[in-house]
Amino acid sequence: MAKGRVCLAYSGGLDTSCILRWLIEEGYEVVAFLANVGQDEPWDEVEKKAIKLGAKKMIIEDLQKEFVDELCFRAVQCNAQYEGRYLLGTSLARPVIARAQMRAAEREKCDFVSHGCTGKGNDQVRFELAFYTIRPDIRVIAPWRDPKFFERFAGREALLDYAAQQGIPVTSTKAKPWSMDANLAHCSYEAGILEDPAITPPEHVWTMTDDPLKAPNEHEDVTISFEKGIPTKIVYPGGEESESVTLFKKLNEIGKKHGVGRIDIVENRFIGLKSRGCYDSPAMTILRWAHLDLEGLVLDAQVRSIRDQFVTHKWSELLYNGMYFSPEREFVENSLLFAQKRVNGEVRLRLYKGNVFVLGRSSETEKLYSAEEASMDSLDNFSPVDTTGFIGIQSIRLKKYGLQKQEEGENLSRA
Amino acid sequence: MAKGRVCLAYSGGLDTSCILRWLIEEGYEVVAFLANVGQDEPWDEVEKKAIKLGAKKMIIEDLQKEFVDELCFRAVQCNAQYEGRYLLGTSLARPVIARAQMRAAEREKCDFVSHGCTGKGNDQVRFELAFYTIRPDIRVIAPWRDPKFFERFAGREALLDYAAQQGIPVTSTKAKPWSMDANLAHCSYEAGILEDPAITPPEHVWTMTDDPLKAPNEHEDVTISFEKGIPTKIVYPGGEESESVTLFKKLNEIGKKHGVGRIDIVENRFIGLKSRGCYDSPAMTILRWAHLDLEGLVLDAQVRSIRDQFVTHKWSELLYNGMYFSPEREFVENSLLFAQKRVNGEVRLRLYKGNVFVLGRSSETEKLYSAEEASMDSLDNFSPVDTTGFIGIQSIRLKKYGLQKQEEGENLSRA
Amino acid sequence: MAKGRVCLAYSGGLDTSCILRWLIEEGYEVVAFLANVGQDEPWDEVEKKAIKLGAKKMIIEDLQKEFVDELCFRAVQCNAQYEGRYLLGTSLARPVIARAQMRAAEREKCDFVSHGCTGKGNDQVRFELAFYTIRPDIRVIAPWRDPKFFERFAGREALLDYAAQQGIPVTSTKAKPWSMDANLAHCSYEAGILEDPAITPPEHVWTMTDDPLKAPNEHEDVTISFEKGIPTKIVYPGGEESESVTLFKKLNEIGKKHGVGRIDIVENRFIGLKSRGCYDSPAMTILRWAHLDLEGLVLDAQVRSIRDQFVTHKWSELLYNGMYFSPEREFVENSLLFAQKRVNGEVRLRLYKGNVFVLGRSSETEKLYSAEEASMDSLDNFSPVDTTGFIGIQSIRLKKYGLQKQEEGENLSRA
Amino acid sequence: MAKGRVCLAYSGGLDTSCILRWLIEEGYEVVAFLANVGQDEPWDEVEKKAIKLGAKKMIIEDLQKEFVDELCFRAVQCNAQYEGRYLLGTSLARPVIARAQMRAAEREKCDFVSHGCTGKGNDQVRFELAFYTIRPDIRVIAPWRDPKFFERFAGREALLDYAAQQGIPVTSTKAKPWSMDANLAHCSYEAGILEDPAITPPEHVWTMTDDPLKAPNEHEDVTISFEKGIPTKIVYPGGEESESVTLFKKLNEIGKKHGVGRIDIVENRFIGLKSRGCYDSPAMTILRWAHLDLEGLVLDAQVRSIRDQFVTHKWSELLYNGMYFSPEREFVENSLLFAQKRVNGEVRLRLYKGNVFVLGRSSETEKLYSAEEASMDSLDNFSPVDTTGFIGIQSIRLKKYGLQKQEEGENLSRA
Repeated sequence: MAKGRVCLAYSGGLDTSCILRWLIEEGYEVVAFLANVGQDEPWDEVEKKAIKLGAKKMIIEDLQKEFVDELCFRAVQCNAQYEGRYLLGTSLARPVIARAQMRAAEREKCDFVSHGCTGKGNDQVRFELAFYTIRPDIRVIAPWRDPKFFERFAGREALLDYAAQQGIPVTSTKAKPWSMDANLAHCSYEAGILEDPAITPPEHVWTMTDDPLKAPNEHEDVTISFEKGIPTKIVYPGGEESESVTLFKKLNEIGKKHGVGRIDIVENRFIGLKSRGCYDSPAMTILRWAHLDLEGLVLDAQVRSIRDQFVTHKWSELLYNGMYFSPEREFVENSLLFAQKRVNGEVRLRLYKGNVFVLGRSSETEKLYSAEEASMDSLDNFSPVDTTGFIGIQSIRLKKYGLQKQEEGENLSRA
Repeated sequence: MAKGRVCLAYSGGLDTSCILRWLIEEGYEVVAFLANVGQDEPWDEVEKKAIKLGAKKMIIEDLQKEFVDELCFRAVQCNAQYEGRYLLGTSLARPVIARAQMRAAEREKCDFVSHGCTGKGNDQVRFELAFYTIRPDIRVIAPWRDPKFFERFAGREALLDYAAQQGIPVTSTKAKPWSMDANLAHCSYEAGILEDPAITPPEHVWTMTDDPLKAPNEHEDVTISFEKGIPTKIVYPGGEESESVTLFKKLNEIGKKHGVGRIDIVENRFIGLKSRGCYDSPAMTILRWAHLDLEGLVLDAQVRSIRDQFVTHKWSELLYNGMYFSPEREFVENSLLFAQKRVNGEVRLRLYKGNVFVLGRSSETEKLYSAEEASMDSLDNFSPVDTTGFIGIQSIRLKKYGLQKQEEGENLSRA
Repeated sequence: MAKGRVCLAYSGGLDTSCILRWLIEEGYEVVAFLANVGQDEPWDEVEKKAIKLGAKKMIIEDLQKEFVDELCFRAVQCNAQYEGRYLLGTSLARPVIARAQMRAAEREKCDFVSHGCTGKGNDQVRFELAFYTIRPDIRVIAPWRDPKFFERFAGREALLDYAAQQGIPVTSTKAKPWSMDANLAHCSYEAGILEDPAITPPEHVWTMTDDPLKAPNEHEDVTISFEKGIPTKIVYPGGEESESVTLFKKLNEIGKKHGVGRIDIVENRFIGLKSRGCYDSPAMTILRWAHLDLEGLVLDAQVRSIRDQFVTHKWSELLYNGMYFSPEREFVENSLLFAQKRVNGEVRLRLYKGNVFVLGRSSETEKLYSAEEASMDSLDNFSPVDTTGFIGIQSIRLKKYGLQKQEEGENLSRA
Repeated sequence: MAKGRVCLAYSGGLDTSCILRWLIEEGYEVVAFLANVGQDEPWDEVEKKAIKLGAKKMIIEDLQKEFVDELCFRAVQCNAQYEGRYLLGTSLARPVIARAQMRAAEREKCDFVSHGCTGKGNDQVRFELAFYTIRPDIRVIAPWRDPKFFERFAGREALLDYAAQQGIPVTSTKAKPWSMDANLAHCSYEAGILEDPAITPPEHVWTMTDDPLKAPNEHEDVTISFEKGIPTKIVYPGGEESESVTLFKKLNEIGKKHGVGRIDIVENRFIGLKSRGCYDSPAMTILRWAHLDLEGLVLDAQVRSIRDQFVTHKWSELLYNGMYFSPEREFVENSLLFAQKRVNGEVRLRLYKGNVFVLGRSSETEKLYSAEEASMDSLDNFSPVDTTGFIGIQSIRLKKYGLQKQEEGENLSRA
């Protein structure tokens, strides 16, 4: 009799195929699980392979809609980015995948889940914290952190030997020179030859963006509409879309063509290591700029400032660290959603050889901006004398600071 | 006998020329002051005009070096930006100009200072708060907030009439259709035809950047070196520079050619109005991306996170609001400078049609990043079992949250 | 015909009585308004006096319930305090009063409102910002900031003369040696002889607390129950209360007897001046300690930390600065309310000569605390080895810092 | 030959005595280490016991001065407290002890350090993170997290048996019904009978404070002087002190007598568990209130607000979590020290039956507070008309919010 049933996150690759066999060898029954978050996979082949290797079942679930609607669009509402640049593509997909895997585990009566994440990365943390929160009594098998496994399979050669021995089909005996992870939001490239942060990734690394230097000489303009901070429509040359996944994919397509959304960074992983990551995220990049721009027009200044400092910063960090399913994420999101209630309007953008230029923005419903009021020439509804008072009051405290400096012998007028 | 001596910020334009005459008419002696922060001016003509209009003296001071060294480079160390995009070009120049004007006022024994800022803008606040802090007993004459002045000169026609009557030479009777303010850090374009935020600024608005769509088809690569977060050298095709102002101007020149650093935003002014501003800042844009990137390699994760949330956010807001000379700016800067002590290294960048691409970064002295450690393949100095414990401890709190949700009847595994 | 109708905040005192007459003299019709937020007033006399002085009407509105339910209890949920000590008593009452005054103004078709606040205080700001937000087209008459008024009535003598001339009854010709403002939440004492911050307020200043040094030698114990962070019941020797206002008043009564809730501080007013304020707030002090304590038992650690840093700090500052009616207050409150959903339980307190001692706390519904888990002796559900991993991962980053210090020649082991 | 030398934190108690013997049994040479941070110990007996049990050496180091000067006084400058109440007594001592233990380990050529901390507490984390940062290659033996040890010694009986077998003298075979940890800053009481958070600790638990209910009927007044936020002198009935440790001990003595500084809380440990802790900290409590009060008089409002939100919050959390030796602690402290430069003056306090009442404060050097300016009666140097402008400008943004609410059909004037 089996030790129990394991729901294994299975991609069909060498690592998880070996893990599948190893789990069976260890006495578990295995249900394989693969989430469709928009990546390209030979879905049928993966399924066949899983079954061939001994999985009781292969579950493939299409999560694209919940991924875009719940995670990607929330990140857009938040202007989320980690450490000033990273749009969190991988981090956004993890909660949706973990959740679906827990659904599968529940349906299939699995007491265990397993995955092929390495012991040094962020993803193991993201997956497992999600598992434990969704189902606190779940038991996780993480082979790459289990000495029994990682000491036996130290290095690719050992895995290839095991694959040969176990009849696991291997398409190529050569490892890719870097690792990739794709979903609708982005594709990531890291490890291998990318580990030297001084070396520019070769052009053929990138998959979701064409080379900006070879992008079309003609720009393309897109108009994006938002309701409550959520993208609700895009208009582009030749068409328009308002269904969320279709709209998102269309932006990926247009963004890809114009080479929009590449970054190459050194980032701080949750577990204390620095790593170099390259990411291309066309749709997310376009949507972030559009949303950020619209907020300039429609969001109150103080709400924006507090939101930026607390919610944007915290939400991004929480997502990166695998804390999507956490009370603190829910906590900050309550304020975020309030802030987005009036983020309604549209932004016109120009895509051109890697750039997203804002051409203009407008809102039919929101009135915080008024050209009349902003105008230096008009004094309607504005008393310039008020500003004198405003400055006078602000200066009370500052004058005392000036006097302190004089007293300390520091001359503020010196360079 | 005169009412007193006024040090007037004088640009030679219609407004400040009328103010100069009006101050004399009001019984003041006027010393005109003009700061050189890198803008293009017919310096001699402005001086002649001031004297011709009755100024006792015209003082022109070259502040470029202190502007770059003290303000622009501090902003780079800070990755400063206001509301997610604005690099603070105008805000950075104001403290340097105000300080020099106060020096001039002191030397020339002026009890008053005056300026031509409008009553709705940020600059009046920035100048005056700086004046009052540097010299708490200074008296400010702000004609555009003085009913005696603004009611008399309601509209450009009234100014032109007064100019004609007072013999003030006017080069053009037509107002520019927008207003501009240039310095080494950027040029700003606002008001007039730019007040409709839906309308794209015409291409000929921009002065410090060429049209990215018409920029060279050949990219140009630049390497920027930093010591303690300060740019110390740039190497570009055909040369290198290490003197701060020369280096900064060179980056402006290269950035201009490649159309780097334009933004078009709706921002929140300190006085509570929203306004539309367009800015081009080639050197600042290039330096910000380079510095941000280097920090990925050399800055501790927690220092970075706290610095981003607290120093970057606050410093940017303070500068925007005219609080450079304030105890709180000095307060946050003390931590900032500590954080920059190890920001040493170099970043390679590619400029191309509006883009600044990071090609790679390295540091000879800093060791926080280690390819060896980051590598998924190596387990030297790393125990994967530790991560299991790390996740276990992190999950203690989250499992309780999961149990609460179950108890509340909320199924976290549902989309 | 009148210039218009003014709704005047009228207390019956010398200042507002003179203002009432002066407004009539200036050609306005006056409707007097007085809010009952729990202070002691000779309500009928005030009304008679207003009518006698020419007010068209006197409106007295009992706001105690909305004051406690909406403001005081929200402050409790927030653990609100300004600058580490002040429980915001005055600040909490202002929004409720301003709102009721605007209702009165609306009903009575007044286009103007007026008040007797001085030009240097916080209250003018709090009232007027509330007025302008609730009804953006309201017009405010602030006599103490109107040169026509304050130059005419420079000093108490001038007011007394005017009172004599206008037939305004004055109970005492001597000004109180300090000013007071009372409501259910507290009484404030400032100005006059309290302006020297080195001098201890005389014992007879305090009205809502008895002298702690003379309080009963017997302590009194109270149990307070909370639901969603809101006090729902108190049990005290001899009874219990669950209606909000009654409960609040009872706590004031018990707290008064035991001398609980006095503070004497120098605080920073919104308008940039420092001032000395003395406040006694029995019920608020008791409730704050109880709520803070219960949160220890039932609130998630991360939610608490973020809430403290962001909501508690900001909400308190906003209330102090008169920004209750603002989008940013609403923004932060959305998260606050989420955080309070599970703040259910009860706290036992001991009141004794100025002290509020916590005796214990419990919750029937919340399970975040577990004596079993906390116990050092039990290893059920806890793997001590996990902590080794947790520490190992945390130390990765810190070891690098240690190595940097060594390299810099700084020996961290030296004192 | 020995496996190596271990520097063991040795208290003379049952646990660390057993650990000492066990380490020797395991093949290590042991150097025992005990820090004097002001607790009461039979120093000579502990030393004799260590040697008797086989330690090569016993090192006792007096750290009182560095503990007070570097840690306690920095906490005072910071107004540090964790989760709104806890003054961090244990957390403050740990860095000083860990540092001295590392010095001892270095002198004694130990490659290992060991301690008797349990696997569920904060102290293991605090000690070990300090060890690893100070000397990244140190190796830590944590017996209570080593299955070899904790499985063998599961429960007190097993330890007592081992003690008997090894000839370890045991003064009492009964465990104390709670655990304690004392230093100059406080004594902590937790675990055992204190684990039920609903039950009040028995009066005899407390050691550093007398029962406030039985404290003297006569109050005692103390004046505390600060320079740069550091306590430099106390004056009390009968004397004065200015040496830091003496001053601190004197405050502990006076505070003890008046029952000052007890708290009883449920707190969040770093490792994700909630625990109940009782602490009495007389001197720290008195100093914190005094310092907080003085800052009201001498600290700029904005510096204070930012310091409270970022530095106070973060520093306290870092210390609690064992991150004293960390770049982020150093980062925030740089700003803190700047903020304290002008915190000069003195505060008069009254101690009475558990209370610390502020009687008044003054500063000879600092001038931010001015009774003249604060006075409502004086208009020197103050233009009330300025406040009108200030309010006018503040209301611009708020009026728009009010208009939005109207448009949304929400009547802000309704309760």
